[in-house]
Amino acid sequence: MSRHTPTAALFNAQLRVINLGLSSFAETLKDGHVPVLDLDWRPPAGGDPELIQRIDALRNETENAWISAIQSANETAIEHMLAAEPHIVGIGIARDVVPGMTDGMVLHAGPPIEWDAMCGPMRGAVMGGLIYENAALTPDEAARLAASGDIAFDPCHHHSAVGPMAGVMTASMPVWIIENVTEGNRAYCTLNEGLGKVLRYGAYGDEVIARLRWMESELAPILSKAIQAHGPIDLRSLIAQALQMGDEGHNRNRAGTSLLIRELAPHLVRLDIPSDAIARTFEFLHSNDHFFLNLTMPAGKCALDAAANIPGSSLVTVMARNGTEFGIRLSGTGNRWFTAPAPIVDGLYLPGFSSEDAAPDIGDSAITETAGYGGFAMAAAPAIVQFVGGTPQLALDTTRRMRTITLAESRAYQIPAMGFRGTPTGIDVLHVAESGIVPAINTGIAHKEPGIGMVGAGLVTPPFSLFADAANALASLLDQSQIHEEVQ
Amino acid sequence: MSRHTPTAALFNAQLRVINLGLSSFAETLKDGHVPVLDLDWRPPAGGDPELIQRIDALRNETENAWISAIQSANETAIEHMLAAEPHIVGIGIARDVVPGMTDGMVLHAGPPIEWDAMCGPMRGAVMGGLIYENAALTPDEAARLAASGDIAFDPCHHHSAVGPMAGVMTASMPVWIIENVTEGNRAYCTLNEGLGKVLRYGAYGDEVIARLRWMESELAPILSKAIQAHGPIDLRSLIAQALQMGDEGHNRNRAGTSLLIRELAPHLVRLDIPSDAIARTFEFLHSNDHFFLNLTMPAGKCALDAAANIPGSSLVTVMARNGTEFGIRLSGTGNRWFTAPAPIVDGLYLPGFSSEDAAPDIGDSAITETAGYGGFAMAAAPAIVQFVGGTPQLALDTTRRMRTITLAESRAYQIPAMGFRGTPTGIDVLHVAESGIVPAINTGIAHKEPGIGMVGAGLVTPPFSLFADAANALASLLDQSQIHEEVQ
Repeated sequence: MSRHTPTAALFNAQLRVINLGLSSFAETLKDGHVPVLDLDWRPPAGGDPELIQRIDALRNETENAWISAIQSANETAIEHMLAAEPHIVGIGIARDVVPGMTDGMVLHAGPPIEWDAMCGPMRGAVMGGLIYENAALTPDEAARLAASGDIAFDPCHHHSAVGPMAGVMTASMPVWIIENVTEGNRAYCTLNEGLGKVLRYGAYGDEVIARLRWMESELAPILSKAIQAHGPIDLRSLIAQALQMGDEGHNRNRAGTSLLIRELAPHLVRLDIPSDAIARTFEFLHSNDHFFLNLTMPAGKCALDAAANIPGSSLVTVMARNGTEFGIRLSGTGNRWFTAPAPIVDGLYLPGFSSEDAAPDIGDSAITETAGYGGFAMAAAPAIVQFVGGTPQLALDTTRRMRTITLAESRAYQIPAMGFRGTPTGIDVLHVAESGIVPAINTGIAHKEPGIGMVGAGLVTPPFSLFADAANALASLLDQSQIHEEVQ
Repeated sequence: MSRHTPTAALFNAQLRVINLGLSSFAETLKDGHVPVLDLDWRPPAGGDPELIQRIDALRNETENAWISAIQSANETAIEHMLAAEPHIVGIGIARDVVPGMTDGMVLHAGPPIEWDAMCGPMRGAVMGGLIYENAALTPDEAARLAASGDIAFDPCHHHSAVGPMAGVMTASMPVWIIENVTEGNRAYCTLNEGLGKVLRYGAYGDEVIARLRWMESELAPILSKAIQAHGPIDLRSLIAQALQMGDEGHNRNRAGTSLLIRELAPHLVRLDIPSDAIARTFEFLHSNDHFFLNLTMPAGKCALDAAANIPGSSLVTVMARNGTEFGIRLSGTGNRWFTAPAPIVDGLYLPGFSSEDAAPDIGDSAITETAGYGGFAMAAAPAIVQFVGGTPQLALDTTRRMRTITLAESRAYQIPAMGFRGTPTGIDVLHVAESGIVPAINTGIAHKEPGIGMVGAGLVTPPFSLFADAANALASLLDQSQIHEEVQ
């Protein structure tokens, strides 16, 4: 057979391959030095035909875009989000400043949940919170009180607040007061305790309670006075600088913490307070590189609250986990929660611990990814893979992938390594539902039993069904409103 | 003609191109979507046939390596360099601690130079230094004194010291004392004044002198006491962390400065000193992100001094400029300087200034590149291109290119974005001479006239002849020593 027949030509020609789906096929070819374009393909809408139809019906036939009702709503929502300017305006006591906060109330991370359904670390944090409030003297007493029905449990998100991990906030706790000066709305978050045996990871031992009492009696008043002396601190500027210094604002906050320390230092030393107390404040901040996390979280919360409750918008305004369920909210579906079982985190474990010890995904800290940093800005923080696992390449790929499900790029938060492009910002639930690409979240891991604390950190993949359900709900609302229009 | 003849096949086949030299050719093809491998090719040894022969003669025939005399010398030299552990051990007054420093002596950056040959900014800094020492009352008087022959000018590098830009050090100035605890050798550097109108950029106005006096009377004593309270500070660890936070250690030191502030803060506030003075110290540090530069420089100096004077070694131990000449030293040629005219820096200028205003390249700060960071670690600091010009890609390419002329990768200083590979460390003058690839340096730009100060920052290319001359000198020494051996 002549080597020049078309058939032969096919076999003589150099192979050029496009691989869809399982990248293991591509790897094999790459090993054979065959050029491969490996597409990260997933079946549209997770392979759900009804959802495909539902989403297609929301497309504008003429242009490749959503129907104008959604498009204009999203333009409004994302502009509110991008225009937000979170400032630190002070520190207060939860009972005095957090809307609707009362004694005997315990706020927690994630969607609504009652004691019986709570995971170990959240139970541990609740018990510790009740001991801290002197509502119980022992862990057993605290557990009985928590189960008695006399305690009102409520999500932080129902009170303009967010909390990392268990996210437990009680009435006497000092909280950051963050204001979006563009619109005046505020968000609240407790002060970060550090890593290891801490309340938010479900620990409630004496050292935990003692640290919380010191934070209330010494740390918070000192920081509060320093902030009053400094005046409001432009948190958006600090986060923007930190993202150019290797932070991503969720699990790496070394730069942000450092920038806050140097910003407050001159005002701290000028306070009329014994220098030992000021020194202890500096030592605590210096020893806790996650201190800034409890500022990036409410910064994101007040930006997203400004974009909430816009009819027709497919913007995801909340992603939060209570350790039992993962919940999300959309701007266009208001205060409704869409939930699914919380997944297990794929991560790196502290010595002596393994995934056997891990509680399911927990915390409001995914507000950072919802706001366009954290996992979405991993490319800005390649060193974070030492904490959450993976490779620097994974960090770049993650940020790139998130561009496919987001509505915009941040104007304030840039990634130098990507030519100063803005971070992927504003998750469009319809893009997620259509592409099957879910938001990337990096997070801490708590021990599944109460009282132990942190066991690791890693990456977590939210359940796709959350986004499918939310997309369906938004589509139904739009149908109704259209029918309604026709009726008129 | 059949489309299957070999000739036709050539024209029918997809073009695959390797481009050598001028990359503009490659650009044209890339625009046409033709795959191009663009090699950064330069004529070997700068196209100098004699130098090529000289270098080839230093090759071991059997293996692709230098002759054992060079190879073993370089292994010794680079190991001394990599093993260095610079610590901050204190702050002293130059006259008390810098070897050979005397009143009436003025140390300066770069190779030896006398008043008549000094560039504008170095003259300005010398004049300011003499006014600061009360040796002259006016700039004119200072200029006359400097020209009188009564002042002993000497390079910082002849006194285990380094100085940024003009690098002027006088007897009363406070200096950092950095010790390489591995071998006990020390290096010295003044404290950084900030940017703009400052002595090291050739300014000598009242504000400049007043700041220097405040640094001597208040800042240095306070920092000195805080360091004594803290104990020696592991500078290698701080630099390693800063390189993972977007610094490169030469023109971007925001992270390093932040880390130093938080390291010292608790000890600063515990000092028995009025809080206003401590607050002024914090304010000064907070306002000056280049403060850490005067620590990365002596850290590099004491690492390189530990690798100096090793017969046969082709390691570059000094790159320094006095604004008139660019000078280098090799480990294997001891204290001999190889010099060439200082080039003009290609950079970004402050508003109202242009390259017309620029003095030639000046400063000992290229010790950072010589030590394996600064320009060599630009990939760790993509945001620096906003200060020195270029693109984030240029930052990556620069670090990659430097790997071709260096002997090792740092064990301490890693670049997360490059899979945590160590920074290219230890310039081999023979690799430079052979490849024609010269070290990449990023640096500040001073105004060419005395008294004005900083006008910009950018990238500079050292003259190739420096490395050719040094390679020739090393080859001659080796020839002699071999002849010597034969004679015996």
